[in-house]
Amino acid sequence: MKFAIGIDLGGSHITAAIVDQNGRIRARKKISFSKAPNGKHGLRLITKLIKSLIHNSSFITHNCHGVGLACPGGVDSAKGIVLADSPNLIGWKGTLIKQELEKTLKIPVFIDNDANLAAWGEKCWGAGKGARNLICLTLGTGVGGGIIIDNKIYRGSHFYAGEIGHMNVDPNGPICSCGKPGHLEALVSGPAIVERYASYTLHAPRSTLNAKHIFNLARKGDRSAQLVVNRTAHYLGIAIASLINIFDPEMVVIGGGVAQAGDILFRPLRKVVKISIMKHPYRRPKIVPARLGEDAGLIGAAALALHQRL
Amino acid sequence: MKFAIGIDLGGSHITAAIVDQNGRIRARKKISFSKAPNGKHGLRLITKLIKSLIHNSSFITHNCHGVGLACPGGVDSAKGIVLADSPNLIGWKGTLIKQELEKTLKIPVFIDNDANLAAWGEKCWGAGKGARNLICLTLGTGVGGGIIIDNKIYRGSHFYAGEIGHMNVDPNGPICSCGKPGHLEALVSGPAIVERYASYTLHAPRSTLNAKHIFNLARKGDRSAQLVVNRTAHYLGIAIASLINIFDPEMVVIGGGVAQAGDILFRPLRKVVKISIMKHPYRRPKIVPARLGEDAGLIGAAALALHQRL
Repeated sequence: MKFAIGIDLGGSHITAAIVDQNGRIRARKKISFSKAPNGKHGLRLITKLIKSLIHNSSFITHNCHGVGLACPGGVDSAKGIVLADSPNLIGWKGTLIKQELEKTLKIPVFIDNDANLAAWGEKCWGAGKGARNLICLTLGTGVGGGIIIDNKIYRGSHFYAGEIGHMNVDPNGPICSCGKPGHLEALVSGPAIVERYASYTLHAPRSTLNAKHIFNLARKGDRSAQLVVNRTAHYLGIAIASLINIFDPEMVVIGGGVAQAGDILFRPLRKVVKISIMKHPYRRPKIVPARLGEDAGLIGAAALALHQRL
Repeated sequence: MKFAIGIDLGGSHITAAIVDQNGRIRARKKISFSKAPNGKHGLRLITKLIKSLIHNSSFITHNCHGVGLACPGGVDSAKGIVLADSPNLIGWKGTLIKQELEKTLKIPVFIDNDANLAAWGEKCWGAGKGARNLICLTLGTGVGGGIIIDNKIYRGSHFYAGEIGHMNVDPNGPICSCGKPGHLEALVSGPAIVERYASYTLHAPRSTLNAKHIFNLARKGDRSAQLVVNRTAHYLGIAIASLINIFDPEMVVIGGGVAQAGDILFRPLRKVVKISIMKHPYRRPKIVPARLGEDAGLIGAAALALHQRL
């Protein structure tokens, strides 16, 4: 049995896991922090975490094929360098993650953007298994995107492909976290759903209110919440229809906290997509929930290391 | 010197050309008609056209590597079959173009959608030379799209990728030819530009008015025409910004009649794209006019046959 180590680097935690060649997590370890470390300090934490994980898992000793690391924001996967700081992770720009970790650990290291690796995880061992071309959206506080083309992660010419959250959906829509109006993220992220509910009900968004509550209210028959969910499905649906018209994939996989809403979101969503895509004699693209949950990036990172191919 | 024959199949003409391995057209022949032939009749016309072209060009006799055919609408390039009729070409659905022509002509035949082949032509011998990932838009009566990924035409899982004209840009926008609101085609095609001018000036669109006139008026200082051009650049620019955020290509090539407007369109367009794309430490995606003009599809078809690889 082959193994690889997946690392999920976040703004509040670093998680490391040993994943086997069937995509099963065999051991995991997590460090949480209130203030994210910078690159230099972070690499020390990651090294410590990996060493302790390996130390406690004797089965992996001679079968660890590498380390994969999922990183927020822009990374150059070829060189293994962080291209830019992201809002939750400052002081990482220029960090030579691959080079430094390979020097310390003496095993091959691969890195990529976390949304790309979530897509890769779903493609290898999750909802996207068997699809040659697929799009994966991760809906949470932000909206991440990953694109699989011809059984490979599509990274673009400068490692910045897949920013589907920053696709324009309504030029008259609300301002996105990036400062531009009407991006998908500003219309269907968790905060966008809360904001929509607040505007429909004329309630200021309470700090206790979140997208999950609103989906629950909708399920219980709250009319305002149902309209909010339908409107969210509408925007998400026309964006996915555009993506299908552009990419013609077998499948669109939707993960992240918001996507856990289940049928109450997916039913209207599939309806909007169906009426919005171009007619085709035989294609029926699937819109499916992700299967790997919060571990998608972690598992995708291990898959990257197991396949040893960028 | 190697040669291939490119065929451009349209609603009002069939053009055939002998193209050499440097992308130069060495001979061409065209048939025009007022009513487009159906598939069966069309194949006879194409065969006749190719035979007459070869007959008159003795230099090609032993060096013709194949025939490439650019077809409007959906085609299965692997099987060489027309998947669906298009508005200007009825009675072609199911036509076994590849099989039938290979039987008659005894040389390899390749077919693809005309917008894909325009992109391929520009990539091989036009404005897109050297780019590994690029998007090509053809702006005319409709808006066609072609996507080159990793030096290949990207066709999607069901040969329907690249329908960029049917990307949603403004859900409150005008109705598209496909019946859905706010698609790129409904906002930046020739007829859309005429319609915009008519609505800004409260003139009913005269039959003599076309996009070219409006660009000319803008160049001469007509304020209404300038506003129409800027608004068109705005919509085209936010769509291209979305495409750059999604694909991260080296280049976006813009062809078709509308794109011949030149700087009066490209200057505001580049401005909109620049302020609308995600910031990146070093990328500067180019927005460039196509170079092959109306021959892009014809030349791309020949390139497909010369490379003999789908």
